[in-house]
Amino acid sequence: MTELTSARSPRVLAARRLAKRAFRARDRRFLAEGPQAVREALLEPGTVVELFHTGEAAAREPRLLDSAAAAGVATTQVSAEVMKVLAQTVTPQGVVAVCHLLDRPLAEAVGPGAQLIAVLAHGRDPGNAGTVIRGADAAGADAVLVRDASVDVLSPKVVRSTAGSLFHLPVVAGLPVEGTIDRLREAGIRVLAADGAGTVLLPEVDLAPAHAWVMGNEAWGLEEAVRDRCDEVVRVPIHGKAESLNLAMAATVCLYASAAAQRG
Amino acid sequence: MTELTSARSPRVLAARRLAKRAFRARDRRFLAEGPQAVREALLEPGTVVELFHTGEAAAREPRLLDSAAAAGVATTQVSAEVMKVLAQTVTPQGVVAVCHLLDRPLAEAVGPGAQLIAVLAHGRDPGNAGTVIRGADAAGADAVLVRDASVDVLSPKVVRSTAGSLFHLPVVAGLPVEGTIDRLREAGIRVLAADGAGTVLLPEVDLAPAHAWVMGNEAWGLEEAVRDRCDEVVRVPIHGKAESLNLAMAATVCLYASAAAQRG
Repeated sequence: MTELTSARSPRVLAARRLAKRAFRARDRRFLAEGPQAVREALLEPGTVVELFHTGEAAAREPRLLDSAAAAGVATTQVSAEVMKVLAQTVTPQGVVAVCHLLDRPLAEAVGPGAQLIAVLAHGRDPGNAGTVIRGADAAGADAVLVRDASVDVLSPKVVRSTAGSLFHLPVVAGLPVEGTIDRLREAGIRVLAADGAGTVLLPEVDLAPAHAWVMGNEAWGLEEAVRDRCDEVVRVPIHGKAESLNLAMAATVCLYASAAAQRG
Repeated sequence: MTELTSARSPRVLAARRLAKRAFRARDRRFLAEGPQAVREALLEPGTVVELFHTGEAAAREPRLLDSAAAAGVATTQVSAEVMKVLAQTVTPQGVVAVCHLLDRPLAEAVGPGAQLIAVLAHGRDPGNAGTVIRGADAAGADAVLVRDASVDVLSPKVVRSTAGSLFHLPVVAGLPVEGTIDRLREAGIRVLAADGAGTVLLPEVDLAPAHAWVMGNEAWGLEEAVRDRCDEVVRVPIHGKAESLNLAMAATVCLYASAAAQRG
């Protein structure tokens, strides 16, 4: 098999520039890195555009290459040096997929049967945002809606920290937060803000009816204007002396409380 | 005020070496970095041995310096260069405290009234271990017990990621896991393993009586020998398509389910 060894090859450069947000937006593509993310991406038809891998990764993950071939995805073997240029991690795992932007309209993501929605209203930390998406997936949420002011959920670090969940449920990015809250409420979905400044405690809220959780920022919570627009501002109780929970922890506790109420 | 400008001063070198586990064990001291951690450490009498700060941090955090003075803690102003040597973060926040090892015997940490205990049986990732300690604090756990094979909970990265919680509840490190499980059971505390391989689902378990959660490793869960020693192996349900939750998320969901059952 021929191995691509030039880091200046046009295809490598085209993939490489997707590390930058502006190019992801312009090319409507992003990168998924590592066997787990690539495996999950390949399960969603039409998601993966092409795949770069090292010879070592091909030997270690033969089934991954088989799935790519079965899906009609172009695969290119590259040298370890080229992989270093493509990968964003310090120790690349040898597989990088170029993916189409997963774009779903809000109306499709939040269908008539939607019971549980997560809204990322201000996440700035990529690891936290990815973990919220993973938690929403695990808790069985119907969709994750991401505000325009949030971190780009297609950045390599977020994609990685979702551990594949980005490909599991509709993730709609670039939404204005006020309009989104209004549309959820019009659709009969109760909108709950999760915020340390909340006056209602999580165990006091009836989580059985359809609802959305609006999550703020790890450092300073939700803006007042956003909180005011929600039906209820809910606080996860702090029983010990901790000042707070981080965003991903608070989100996971809320989403699992919802799942417990809705699924028993 | 005189400013210490030599990174080779014996006191700076003595503090600096606490970045290494072997020296923390030998000197029975560790470092707390950043205003939040130092503030929490100062609230625990006898914890802080001495404090290093930059002039900038003193101007920004006058109350922190006042608390140190009130507690009779020696404070030393250092140059930004010396702070860079002392601090473990890329952008140091200008305050580092040398702390005494917080050492509590197991019998004291797990008193007769203990209702909720977290056992870190195999945590390798410092950020995850710190987040579990923070989650245990927030959920009102009585103590965190850390197995000898785990990451050192006094490493700068763990101390930082506990966001002060390390100083809030008894954290007992260096414990053999089997003996600890046996002693908890002898004390009438039910021991529950949290593991993706569990056969019992979290919502099915009666969490009202006193119990301990034994948490495994983010990558491969708990060893069979440890699981077998526990009363029950419990799994957090995955409702969506996610493969798993990470250790800190699973731990927080379990601990908050316990708090809800015990506190209503």
